[in-house]
Amino acid sequence: MAGIATGEGPIRHGGDLGEARRRFPGAPEPWIDLSTGINPVPYPCPPIEASHFERLPAPDDLRALQAAAAGAYGAAPGQVVAAPGTQALIALLPRLRPAGRVAVVAPTYAEHAAGWRRAGHAVAAVAGPEESAGFDVAVVVTPNNPDGRRWAPGALAAFAGRLAPGGWLVVDEAFADLEPGPSLCPVLPANAIVLRSFGKTYGLAGLRLGFAVAAPDLAAAIRDGLGPWAVSGPAIAVGRRALADAPWRERARADRARDAARLDGLLERAGGRIVGGTCLFRTAAFAHGPALFEALGRAGIHVRRFDDDPGRLRFGLPAGETQWRRLDAVLAPVAASRGGSATG
Amino acid sequence: MAGIATGEGPIRHGGDLGEARRRFPGAPEPWIDLSTGINPVPYPCPPIEASHFERLPAPDDLRALQAAAAGAYGAAPGQVVAAPGTQALIALLPRLRPAGRVAVVAPTYAEHAAGWRRAGHAVAAVAGPEESAGFDVAVVVTPNNPDGRRWAPGALAAFAGRLAPGGWLVVDEAFADLEPGPSLCPVLPANAIVLRSFGKTYGLAGLRLGFAVAAPDLAAAIRDGLGPWAVSGPAIAVGRRALADAPWRERARADRARDAARLDGLLERAGGRIVGGTCLFRTAAFAHGPALFEALGRAGIHVRRFDDDPGRLRFGLPAGETQWRRLDAVLAPVAASRGGSATG
Repeated sequence: MAGIATGEGPIRHGGDLGEARRRFPGAPEPWIDLSTGINPVPYPCPPIEASHFERLPAPDDLRALQAAAAGAYGAAPGQVVAAPGTQALIALLPRLRPAGRVAVVAPTYAEHAAGWRRAGHAVAAVAGPEESAGFDVAVVVTPNNPDGRRWAPGALAAFAGRLAPGGWLVVDEAFADLEPGPSLCPVLPANAIVLRSFGKTYGLAGLRLGFAVAAPDLAAAIRDGLGPWAVSGPAIAVGRRALADAPWRERARADRARDAARLDGLLERAGGRIVGGTCLFRTAAFAHGPALFEALGRAGIHVRRFDDDPGRLRFGLPAGETQWRRLDAVLAPVAASRGGSATG
Repeated sequence: MAGIATGEGPIRHGGDLGEARRRFPGAPEPWIDLSTGINPVPYPCPPIEASHFERLPAPDDLRALQAAAAGAYGAAPGQVVAAPGTQALIALLPRLRPAGRVAVVAPTYAEHAAGWRRAGHAVAAVAGPEESAGFDVAVVVTPNNPDGRRWAPGALAAFAGRLAPGGWLVVDEAFADLEPGPSLCPVLPANAIVLRSFGKTYGLAGLRLGFAVAAPDLAAAIRDGLGPWAVSGPAIAVGRRALADAPWRERARADRARDAARLDGLLERAGGRIVGGTCLFRTAAFAHGPALFEALGRAGIHVRRFDDDPGRLRFGLPAGETQWRRLDAVLAPVAASRGGSATG
């Protein structure tokens, strides 16, 4: 299944322009990186005081960050654990319980299955969380990457109740912040762990910040697993401020939804069938996906492809009109050559 | 033993001025934090480009950081794994192998024993690495925190050979950068993992950066355990530059050695017996340690104490003459009241 690691090779990730440059050495600079689902309009962080770089992150500041996150996610402060990115949590969780049977709703972000496998668990790819009954752990990404599938909190809570005794439901809401649907956080089952990404929403992926939301005893175990000072001083300083800024988030939600609709228009005109996505990325199926990937690459535009489903391409959002025009300049001729047919 | 966690309560750490302010509410501001062993003169980092905060850290940049670290530590690039602080590695290593018997040379930094215990290992405190024969894992901090004990690379390599089959020797060289003694890195045994801190040496503890140095297969397992993008973009940008700056490191070595000698002089004059330390902290035993801790706290100076050895206090280095004068203002009356006696 697309994106599910087999354990036989390295996982391909978006965001690696070095690899793109090596593959398309003649492409014009600057590259446009549409290979990730990161908000292209970052939160405007003020200059960060030197003390945040120099001193060990203070426990009081970490608590304030977690309280701000709790407010943004509709959780209680004691349920929130800050981590250096959700990826750190994806790597950690499989090492916090004995090896067992893990159902990953697939296709999805490949690091989930890889992380559980690496820690010795038996991983099964399942088509939906309804197939996870009796497993020790179920992993669901909602909205899902790359296809945007969603599961309602009520349904997820029901699935959490059908796992093996002591089982965990891991719900990766990395892309939930800017979406209209409700989160599992306000109605969190005692055996669920919700992951929330900071870097994607706020366009600050280099800062490395993400959160786990879980019942206090589970949250304490995750906190112990990370150890003290897991999150950097700059991440705490910026995160506190950004997570408390609801008006910025509301504007970002509206602006990115508009961008996503505009992107769908360009992709459909070029023969893409929109498979799904979120307002930070759109996944489309093309009759000539590999050729389009190459055309985009030669034009200095890096998008995400999937080795086992080469017709599909995932597009992040362009940042600003220059980038939109360069994308359009590659997609428009495809549209013209199609003459309006549905599959090219 | 001092600093070895019993698993019965939270571990006390330096660097928490919030706790110090609550304990000494009338103390003058600004507080002087001498409770950690962090270089008080930080590496002068240039402004960090916005892209390092915004983009996912690039694999090419991470490789360049690890190559710079390899150069600084006398290791091969394939042996170096960057992490968000050595603490992240201390938390991770115990989860990368099945539960076993772990010898921790004690007293030492408490998170080592706590991390192995949390992951289900049986931890024994031993007086020296020579007592670790037959254990599955031995942990040695050199130079040791808080007493500055040191073990030579040749001796450590011999201990590595006397562990149980498949055993690991974990050598925490967090304070080695500015010390004169040789590192284990250039003569690394195949079953050793050396930890190196960036934040302490470069005075940038908030950045969260540290390294493991291990044989390539072991390094790969640690890398897998951390997952991708473990280190932030700002940490990579600053780390690359600082680790390649050998002249700065040489000056820091000389300057901090001078500071450490000056600090020893103040502490001895106040009746302290220097137990040991590094050029980033000094540990001294006082006849009236708890009273001195209180006097320092009332004067807004936070030092490190040890619950199970209350006569001992650990002092980081003051930053600048104002701080030296404030420290002297508390210690000088103690010296005067002693009238020159050796134990006060």
